[in-house]
Amino acid sequence: MDGRERYFEDWNVGETLVSASRIIDEAQIVAFAREYDPQPFHLDPEAAKRSPFGGLIASGWQTASVSMRLIVDGALFGPEGGIGLGVDELRWPRPVFPGDELHVVAEVLSKAPSRTKRAGVINFKLTTRNQRDEDVMTQTAIVMVANRPEGAK
Amino acid sequence: MDGRERYFEDWNVGETLVSASRIIDEAQIVAFAREYDPQPFHLDPEAAKRSPFGGLIASGWQTASVSMRLIVDGALFGPEGGIGLGVDELRWPRPVFPGDELHVVAEVLSKAPSRTKRAGVINFKLTTRNQRDEDVMTQTAIVMVANRPEGAK
Repeated sequence: MDGRERYFEDWNVGETLVSASRIIDEAQIVAFAREYDPQPFHLDPEAAKRSPFGGLIASGWQTASVSMRLIVDGALFGPEGGIGLGVDELRWPRPVFPGDELHVVAEVLSKAPSRTKRAGVINFKLTTRNQRDEDVMTQTAIVMVANRPEGAK
Repeated sequence: MDGRERYFEDWNVGETLVSASRIIDEAQIVAFAREYDPQPFHLDPEAAKRSPFGGLIASGWQTASVSMRLIVDGALFGPEGGIGLGVDELRWPRPVFPGDELHVVAEVLSKAPSRTKRAGVINFKLTTRNQRDEDVMTQTAIVMVANRPEGAK
């Protein structure tokens, strides 16, 4: 059973799902930076050489956004997606460089029914890793996930 | 003194800085969703009408990214920008709809020198608000901010 068949009832605390992977290249890093985070170490490969990182790195918000894309593509929050209520303890322990290939590991930390019968709330520990399996981003996401609809198998 | 002249030494706990504002339109919401968060309520105005939100809304990660742009443009983390180490208690209490005009209020929660003499760490309470001054995103950002360079005035 992958995420595409899962409703709130189907997840168990402690289990993990893993997304596919996605490469982030220099053009994507610069395009995101130009629109959303125009700091020299995200925007300009030459200026970035003189930064503490020694080269161009992705905005942390781009790493978060790419992670979301991997979660949606893998339906890690279920077939109807999830409504993100918030995030705790978001950290960027390592930079993301051009050419890095990222994937996301989602672990169910806890789950609780909501007041409605239509959805419940799951806390996922989300870890974004690079091609060397090093953590580049960690977060605890608080996500409203749909219950199995009446009549669905 | 706006953010552009500030180094780590110049901030005081409790003071606030306010960014300029920025409108987010439907085309920007859809473009971001197509690349990073292709869920129907971010991507497709027709499908979004049938969602719990009643219409298209921006990805929460786009709200975070637009907030970063407002912070960079206003130099709210100082003239050299800031290195984001992480974020605590990120919340999206209200959706962002096409045409909403956002601004960011940054309040200094605490500051601590780092082990190096080149920078310190400031915890900012960041609140992103819409044109009705309603909170659409809140977060506590942990940011490394440059010290005043030797010899600078």
